[in-house]
Amino acid sequence: MQDLSRRIFLEKLGLGAGTAVLASALPYPLLAATPEAPLPADRKLNVALCGLGNYASALADGLQASLYCRLAGVVTGHPEKAREWKQKYNLPDKNIYNYQNFDTIAANKDIDLVYVVLPNALHKEYTVRAARAGKHIICEKPMATSVQDCREMIAACQKAGVQLAIGYRLHYEPTHLEIKRLGQQKVFGQVRMIDAGLGYQTYDIKEITNPPHINTATEWRLNKALSGGGPLMDLGIYCIQAARYIMGQEPVSVTGQYGPVVNKARFKEVEESITWQMNFPGGAVANCTTSCGYNIDRLFASADEGYFELSPALSYGPFKGKTSKGVIDFPVINQQAKQLDEIGKLILQNQPLPSHITGAEGLKDVKIIEAIYQSAQTQKKVMV
Amino acid sequence: MQDLSRRIFLEKLGLGAGTAVLASALPYPLLAATPEAPLPADRKLNVALCGLGNYASALADGLQASLYCRLAGVVTGHPEKAREWKQKYNLPDKNIYNYQNFDTIAANKDIDLVYVVLPNALHKEYTVRAARAGKHIICEKPMATSVQDCREMIAACQKAGVQLAIGYRLHYEPTHLEIKRLGQQKVFGQVRMIDAGLGYQTYDIKEITNPPHINTATEWRLNKALSGGGPLMDLGIYCIQAARYIMGQEPVSVTGQYGPVVNKARFKEVEESITWQMNFPGGAVANCTTSCGYNIDRLFASADEGYFELSPALSYGPFKGKTSKGVIDFPVINQQAKQLDEIGKLILQNQPLPSHITGAEGLKDVKIIEAIYQSAQTQKKVMV
Repeated sequence: MQDLSRRIFLEKLGLGAGTAVLASALPYPLLAATPEAPLPADRKLNVALCGLGNYASALADGLQASLYCRLAGVVTGHPEKAREWKQKYNLPDKNIYNYQNFDTIAANKDIDLVYVVLPNALHKEYTVRAARAGKHIICEKPMATSVQDCREMIAACQKAGVQLAIGYRLHYEPTHLEIKRLGQQKVFGQVRMIDAGLGYQTYDIKEITNPPHINTATEWRLNKALSGGGPLMDLGIYCIQAARYIMGQEPVSVTGQYGPVVNKARFKEVEESITWQMNFPGGAVANCTTSCGYNIDRLFASADEGYFELSPALSYGPFKGKTSKGVIDFPVINQQAKQLDEIGKLILQNQPLPSHITGAEGLKDVKIIEAIYQSAQTQKKVMV
Repeated sequence: MQDLSRRIFLEKLGLGAGTAVLASALPYPLLAATPEAPLPADRKLNVALCGLGNYASALADGLQASLYCRLAGVVTGHPEKAREWKQKYNLPDKNIYNYQNFDTIAANKDIDLVYVVLPNALHKEYTVRAARAGKHIICEKPMATSVQDCREMIAACQKAGVQLAIGYRLHYEPTHLEIKRLGQQKVFGQVRMIDAGLGYQTYDIKEITNPPHINTATEWRLNKALSGGGPLMDLGIYCIQAARYIMGQEPVSVTGQYGPVVNKARFKEVEESITWQMNFPGGAVANCTTSCGYNIDRLFASADEGYFELSPALSYGPFKGKTSKGVIDFPVINQQAKQLDEIGKLILQNQPLPSHITGAEGLKDVKIIEAIYQSAQTQKKVMV
């Protein structure tokens, strides 16, 4: 049984029978195949995906590959999607919810955790409702569209005694764990400057499950009421995250500049692109950019004694990198499975989640995003 | 003689006898070994270097390798440097000037051109004096420390009937000619975003020749009266240039943000680092950074159908690059010799210099630099 688990795990890492690499030779203390604390025999955390857009499919794939979580149910406003997912994943009718009857999930012992994959502006409502239903929650990033919403989400989860994680998949990804190490452990000395950009010229996102009480645009990201903002919310947050975990510090101030709107028909409500700077204690600066008008996927850090960089850097990968001393090259992993396993294992063990993936962390990003927007609007430096 | 010239030229390009590459196979229409128009037999343009700091030595090397220019004299405030250069380059006493007797160069028929390599704030005075002495001028970039000074320099040269070039070495460098082509000819479609950075953690610049009437700091770049500003003046200008020649457009507006001062003892008068954005007609944005506090040397352009990038990008090279379709790989050339040859040949032929290397071009950069500083000081977007 142990051997089987290990094999499955190695295959998940792309290190199956065809390769000779041993888990002990991996460059990271990745998730051990045998958990440190005993888990209930054959027990997996039962996860319901709330919102069946594109990223829900990636999460479903991750759940299929997961050792500690399994797809147990869905929440969707589209009956045809409900039928499709029920059939594809062999889900019982009793584990399929819509947005009206969602709260009755409280009585369902076969759902442990709700993974909120809805448009940003709905994260708060469904996190709070899931908490009240007594379910643990993973909520996609950005955690919410305002700091106030983040605070209400944290309070609701605390009150209900459930755990709240934010979907920071890169916190489990080997390449990103490496750049975090290079920065925080000052492997190339003190980092002085970070140059980060993530942008996609066009979204290729199909219509997402729309709760019936919200009048959504076809692409919810262009609808400010649903998205809370433009690319800064969904893509720029990766630059903010990377700068923060490379520095191991919080920025003290930010400046932001809206880019010109090239596609005026498309970007009526949210920014098309934005550049911003984050000033860290000690004087390091992160100069960042995000856009829905152009492609960019780069990360560079300049330290006193060298540099490190990734390109591609912040997308789904595979990530490629180099430093002033060599290459950064780690195995490609199933990022969603890894994230779900790490979170799932701790919840199964009734252990607290580490703070760098909880609501406290999500709130920090949203606070910075609010400050960047405020700076772009006022043309003033904003203290965070 | 033709064959010899060609061989020397190819050797200068690193394409001498040891390599099989023919000039006709070169990726660029580089300077032809046989000039198109007849030149006076064995005639070279006699150049006097005005200011004997570090970069003057690089120019002296370029002059040694040049086909159409030669080092004929120097202007320096240091008698010991005068002796050293006289001996090293076999210069006659009559071609060695100091800052007091510089104007008598007017009577010296053996000096055709003065190359001004002084601290930025002195560019105007020595360009104007050289023009009044009837000499052609190459002035290092930045052209001057204010737009007003640039205008006076252009007017003085026009009045004197002499040609004024600005030391834009990268306008002759094959890798940069390539990125100019990729951008302006829309090889990867319309460029939407440029990410450019040039910074050096520390200057390693020895004391430069100081005209006696200016009280200089040991490192003139830290002295605002001599430098006119910090890294934006000397390093950031490369980012401005690159963005402009990739786009083939002038920015319509800029925003700028001073970085924190980490080394307060060193950066009392000029900025330690600065980030800025340039907005081009059509909506492209260049997000740039320069610093004397950290190292960076990168250039990236995102276009509708691909990207191109260099790293190292804007320093002395050798430059390395890639695009979404392959690598950018050109022979290493002697940048100073190439620049001097292209300028020298045209002056010898009594042909006008192309506008993209003249005072008109230098003024454009200084105008943008002034706008960036103004934006950083006022925290407002500034129209250029």
